[in-house]
Amino acid sequence: MSNVDQDNNNLFMGLALELAYTAFDNDEVPVGAVIVQRRNSEILSAFANQMRSLKSSIAHAEMLAIQKAMKVTHNERLIECDMYVSLEPCPMCAQAISFARIKNLYFAAEDEKSGGVLNGPKIFDSTSCHHKPQVHHGMMGKESSQLLKDFFKSKRKYK
Amino acid sequence: MSNVDQDNNNLFMGLALELAYTAFDNDEVPVGAVIVQRRNSEILSAFANQMRSLKSSIAHAEMLAIQKAMKVTHNERLIECDMYVSLEPCPMCAQAISFARIKNLYFAAEDEKSGGVLNGPKIFDSTSCHHKPQVHHGMMGKESSQLLKDFFKSKRKYK
Repeated sequence: MSNVDQDNNNLFMGLALELAYTAFDNDEVPVGAVIVQRRNSEILSAFANQMRSLKSSIAHAEMLAIQKAMKVTHNERLIECDMYVSLEPCPMCAQAISFARIKNLYFAAEDEKSGGVLNGPKIFDSTSCHHKPQVHHGMMGKESSQLLKDFFKSKRKYK
Repeated sequence: MSNVDQDNNNLFMGLALELAYTAFDNDEVPVGAVIVQRRNSEILSAFANQMRSLKSSIAHAEMLAIQKAMKVTHNERLIECDMYVSLEPCPMCAQAISFARIKNLYFAAEDEKSGGVLNGPKIFDSTSCHHKPQVHHGMMGKESSQLLKDFFKSKRKYK
């Protein structure tokens, strides 16, 4: 990997994490996702979770980012795009990433309880998965993981 | 099951199938989905696939129906609702159905290649699945299956 690639990865994952902090401030589960067009490093979409604000349990950052990126490109396939997300995608989002034909998936923290890539149903390894992105994980994982822990700790405090 | 329940099931699955026929006419993969409020049998949402028309590979009938039902009820959980869909949901939709806390899932045809309930990652049996609906399948399965076969046959003809 070149230094430029590494710089870009830090930049985009940093943005996903910034969005996760914003989500925290808005009382949303702190997750952020960014979709980038590879050829010119253009950001097509960047979202935090909006489950509470949209009153929708499926308004995950990744779903919103995919929906928007397809809209701006007028294309149902994001074949030359990468996704950066601060948490391991759940099975719903992992399958959506596969349908979208995302090329590289970068995620920060692992999600042992509800993740669907390394954990649970391991969507990309299933016979029903017809496109598997390249998966890279761990970058900024500790920071993202700490943010999630802080969020759920603060929730328990006020219960 | 009472006769009234059986009549309702036929009515709602019939509507899901009608939507699938509409999808076929619009050159969409023929799948339809309906969400019903149990207490008064009110239809909250009814959609056909719109992947082509919305240029979105995640615009499955089930996702559109869940999104709309959450919007009209102003609730991110559809705990007293049932879903009728003409084809076994894929892993993305199955996980969304779980997040939505749908009570009963009725589907017509099985999808051995891309399904996520009885096939593939069997989402509801996974450790990452925290709500499992009651699953009922097979009703009007032959008709739905034939419609899908006709659709893909017509696609091959013009390739």
